[in-house]
Amino acid sequence: MNVGIIGLGLMGGSLAKALKKYALATKIYGYARSEKTKKEILELNLVDEIATIDTIKEKCDLIVLAMPVDNIIAFFPNLLDIKDDTTIMDLGSTKEFIIKNIPHTIRTNFVAAHPMCGNEKFGPKAAMDNLYEGKTIVLCDLEANDDLHKNRVITLFQEIGMRLVMMNAHDHDVHACYMSHLPHAISYSLANTVMGHEDPKSIIALAAGGFRDMSRIAKSSPDMWTDIFRQNRDNLLDSIELFNKQMSDVKKMVEDEDYEKLKEWMHKATSLHEIL
Amino acid sequence: MNVGIIGLGLMGGSLAKALKKYALATKIYGYARSEKTKKEILELNLVDEIATIDTIKEKCDLIVLAMPVDNIIAFFPNLLDIKDDTTIMDLGSTKEFIIKNIPHTIRTNFVAAHPMCGNEKFGPKAAMDNLYEGKTIVLCDLEANDDLHKNRVITLFQEIGMRLVMMNAHDHDVHACYMSHLPHAISYSLANTVMGHEDPKSIIALAAGGFRDMSRIAKSSPDMWTDIFRQNRDNLLDSIELFNKQMSDVKKMVEDEDYEKLKEWMHKATSLHEIL
Repeated sequence: MNVGIIGLGLMGGSLAKALKKYALATKIYGYARSEKTKKEILELNLVDEIATIDTIKEKCDLIVLAMPVDNIIAFFPNLLDIKDDTTIMDLGSTKEFIIKNIPHTIRTNFVAAHPMCGNEKFGPKAAMDNLYEGKTIVLCDLEANDDLHKNRVITLFQEIGMRLVMMNAHDHDVHACYMSHLPHAISYSLANTVMGHEDPKSIIALAAGGFRDMSRIAKSSPDMWTDIFRQNRDNLLDSIELFNKQMSDVKKMVEDEDYEKLKEWMHKATSLHEIL
Repeated sequence: MNVGIIGLGLMGGSLAKALKKYALATKIYGYARSEKTKKEILELNLVDEIATIDTIKEKCDLIVLAMPVDNIIAFFPNLLDIKDDTTIMDLGSTKEFIIKNIPHTIRTNFVAAHPMCGNEKFGPKAAMDNLYEGKTIVLCDLEANDDLHKNRVITLFQEIGMRLVMMNAHDHDVHACYMSHLPHAISYSLANTVMGHEDPKSIIALAAGGFRDMSRIAKSSPDMWTDIFRQNRDNLLDSIELFNKQMSDVKKMVEDEDYEKLKEWMHKATSLHEIL
């Protein structure tokens, strides 16, 4: 199988490395827009060949769209003339809006995938050959796909060691919002709060595990996350409202010095321990 | 030097292990209230001897108060009759209220310390011999201490590999609030939001690094953290207000679809990267 990867950042670059590690591709083609990125991809030996979109469409059995979610949609017009047996798959963090925008002529070729294993790093240098191992891949609305395309994608993710979860795109976007998009909004807010109040010296001196963990994803790419917030806007607004209610509650309990209630509220939160 | 540790949980138990690892104590005495905890401490071989408070006062050069912050204050009356050359030190996460409550007759003996290395685990089993290594220890208001006591504590923390930071108790409580207490309030709120909205199956299926990191400290002990929130109430309320303002801001930018402003706001947050 020849694989073409459009966008060789953390997700696309790591997929390229995993394909090499498990010898799953005959040849890996890569596409990037800027000369600087192309050079970096070759230096890192992420792909066998940097190619044009036309070459990738001609040579590849699987085309992977590993760019920010708005760019995925903007790229679809390039794929209208793919062969029937060419599979397209994306790795975006939102699914409903992307699926709504797939041209109907290539809908059966397009498998919507979201690997739950991103981190705050980005760009070709962030690529790791074990990013996907042991992690969850969510595949959405597979009933719309031809068996050839569906099975090709399922086999690939199984072979690189991922745990498969199937769900519809709407449910995915709700769950991904609470488990990933809301935490990003919170982490950016915490980072801005602390940097607005504390001097760098104190931040360095006193940053322990808790703050480091809570602020880590605030280093994530603003370009990528602005698009995600836009595409999952309604769910995000709902989740922020629920979260802000919890923050008002804790503020009120501390203001009222209702420490018994506060302790109960904390106990409720600690029960997460039984799940994760 | 003989050391007595009151409370052998994560912090006290880890200190006992570090003292053994670096052979810094002639003998380590431990005190715990419940029979169950005493048994656990002995089984884990954390101390050389479980002792009464009187024995600890008689035999020890250094007495370490490693309990929740309210219990530290409640314990002070037991220490009024210590010898002049006995050092007392605490490991609490708040400093101003504790220091205000030290009986003046033992003020020079009491060194106020806060190791910036806690985690969400608690109890004797959580003890690790390298918890303190390479981490920061904040020592407050040292000018109130006799040299003997001050130097004894400084030497101990240096020998177990900690980085010393000195500041006054008021500043400590402000900084610790933003870098640790506020993140705990946020993590508890996120855990309660997600558990109120999502089913356990989806949480397990979709929890990736971001959510795991952001919710980790929501598993922290409610007893311990209720006390900390109470003792640092005013700073905590101020910090929650500033954080809630950031959350309102992000909500408004998404509501207004002001994505350029949103991206700028995210960029501001990512500059944390330059510091940490």
